[in-house]
Amino acid sequence: LLGHKQNPKLQNALERQKLSGAAPPHARRITPVILSGGSGSRLWPLSRKQRPKQMLALAGERSMLELTAARVADPERYAEPIVVTAAGHALDVEACFEQAGMPLHRLILEPEGRNTAPAIALAALTADPADLLLVMPSDHLIKDEASFQQAVDEARPSAEAGRLVTFGIRPTRAETGYGYIKRGEQIAAGTYKVDEFVEKPAAPAAAEFVRGGYDWNAGIFLFRADAYLAALRTHAPDIFVGTIAAVGIADDQRTIRPDPALFREIRAQSIDRAVMEHEPNVAVVTMDAGWSDVGTWQALHQVSDHDSGDNTVGGEVVALDVKGSLIRTEGPMIVAIGVENLAIVATGDVVLVMPLSESQRVSEAVALLTSRSDPRL
Amino acid sequence: LLGHKQNPKLQNALERQKLSGAAPPHARRITPVILSGGSGSRLWPLSRKQRPKQMLALAGERSMLELTAARVADPERYAEPIVVTAAGHALDVEACFEQAGMPLHRLILEPEGRNTAPAIALAALTADPADLLLVMPSDHLIKDEASFQQAVDEARPSAEAGRLVTFGIRPTRAETGYGYIKRGEQIAAGTYKVDEFVEKPAAPAAAEFVRGGYDWNAGIFLFRADAYLAALRTHAPDIFVGTIAAVGIADDQRTIRPDPALFREIRAQSIDRAVMEHEPNVAVVTMDAGWSDVGTWQALHQVSDHDSGDNTVGGEVVALDVKGSLIRTEGPMIVAIGVENLAIVATGDVVLVMPLSESQRVSEAVALLTSRSDPRL
Repeated sequence: LLGHKQNPKLQNALERQKLSGAAPPHARRITPVILSGGSGSRLWPLSRKQRPKQMLALAGERSMLELTAARVADPERYAEPIVVTAAGHALDVEACFEQAGMPLHRLILEPEGRNTAPAIALAALTADPADLLLVMPSDHLIKDEASFQQAVDEARPSAEAGRLVTFGIRPTRAETGYGYIKRGEQIAAGTYKVDEFVEKPAAPAAAEFVRGGYDWNAGIFLFRADAYLAALRTHAPDIFVGTIAAVGIADDQRTIRPDPALFREIRAQSIDRAVMEHEPNVAVVTMDAGWSDVGTWQALHQVSDHDSGDNTVGGEVVALDVKGSLIRTEGPMIVAIGVENLAIVATGDVVLVMPLSESQRVSEAVALLTSRSDPRL
Repeated sequence: LLGHKQNPKLQNALERQKLSGAAPPHARRITPVILSGGSGSRLWPLSRKQRPKQMLALAGERSMLELTAARVADPERYAEPIVVTAAGHALDVEACFEQAGMPLHRLILEPEGRNTAPAIALAALTADPADLLLVMPSDHLIKDEASFQQAVDEARPSAEAGRLVTFGIRPTRAETGYGYIKRGEQIAAGTYKVDEFVEKPAAPAAAEFVRGGYDWNAGIFLFRADAYLAALRTHAPDIFVGTIAAVGIADDQRTIRPDPALFREIRAQSIDRAVMEHEPNVAVVTMDAGWSDVGTWQALHQVSDHDSGDNTVGGEVVALDVKGSLIRTEGPMIVAIGVENLAIVATGDVVLVMPLSESQRVSEAVALLTSRSDPRL
């Protein structure tokens, strides 16, 4: 840290990022920050290292990234987005925006993933301090656009006032794969203080949280760039300083490539762990917008259109007397007969078959193939 | 029929095929007749029109046809075999025998399948009248070679005496896919008269037959060529005459190609329906030789080696917590997690998934694809 303080570039950046204090005029458009760094190995074999989940057209014709960008494309409300992604996916992201005819303000290319706290810091450092940043994963599905926009509207005054606002999702099951948020005192319409962030709980605790009215932590945030950086400096100064060192003064460039050696040194941590759990000045707005992180084949089945047998089918599929299954191929034709509640997913080189209810276990196969350095990952 | 009688070639053939009456010397070797005309669509998608079941290496490294030929390759006991197959499979059959270094006496190429009664007649017409023919499907599995040879030995005296001997299999379940044989009075050691042939029964009848000690009809026969032709002439004279007309005088040729137009005119019927059910001079020898017709994926699973989870696995397969399943691929890698009692079969262009217990239903998919003129059949 002391070493970095000797760096004039760093000093300059620290100076520039000082909290401006006064809220910007209400008309300021929100800057979407789309985090597109994940690989989504839980949707393997469709998702691959070279074709992560956000690049897949999981729901309809458009990729998850395109759907995410389209959600915040209204120029009345939103400025052009900042996308943070892995360097290896730069061309895919550019192609996605170009083909969709959507503008892209800035592309930040991580030399490797260091989780969300540094990724968001990269975006915040290259934004205007008073910019309102709407941070969103690039691979979530939100079916009810209007409710989403309404939640953003509700969150806006708190964010403008310097709070870090997170969006909560009403749980539909005792999911152990998500963090939970305990709402506290009401601040404004739809907006509450956060009493507690809880990391992914065990099943009994998850059930208790659902009964207790906790929200799921969806990983969607609204805050001013300077508010986030200030909180990061307070709660995770090493990440703050490390990110500044890696990104340098690069805010005018459309494509930003943090220094690989310096970026690799940054501690990998989520925004929840690094900032939100420690920061008192946070708020939660509950969003009832048909959200899904589409984190498993089961989750995709739940949010997809179903045929009369409660099946979700994609690609060349023959399903005879099949119920409650997700069957999807972009390779060989799948013929399924008399099966229930299965995920059957085929690509040209892999076929995955498992009960939908055990979708989480795809990670076991991915781990095994990783240990074998299998190229089909 | 009258028209055929004017044909001098036919007259000649009829003359030549007159029953010789006297049994041949005991040293005469048995001539295997391997019926290789089927397509085995119940093992689709591995079996295809262009690669029927007998060409597949279902159990081990060798194709079913090769295993069948090897079973009767002992030159002390068996003459070189006659193979009856579809014209389109001539090269495959030749290649199979050549690669295995096994001799092939005669190849009879059917222009199209007319079921077993005409196919066996083709072989019998081109054999010596007193030849003992051991008729076998090319796609059955017989694990206990010694018991098989013993059953053939038991059947031999009756066959030499002019009886049509069929081999019965002790049922292991109330299978509705096979015909049944009711044994009658004992003729010799292990050999019984046949009281009744029963075509594929409904489930309650099948159960009754199993309780009543009936045998399965395995479609394996031993008889003199002239005895079969005499019985065929008696019970299905149209098939007898039609086959003679189609094959002409061709017995000295290694490869025989019946006249397509004439052969197509022959009534398609099984030897059971056309001859065995009507002929009084029949006998049955029960064979306890680990027989399976490998007629379904379930049947293949039952006769195959199993891993500790009772799975039969072939090709590149990752099975995690999988039980009682058959998983086989010659295309994409199959990853199965947490499933039970499934058949999962993949080729480069098709993946089939169904409960093993419903293996018969693959015919539904084949029928559907046939109606669509799908090329993957």
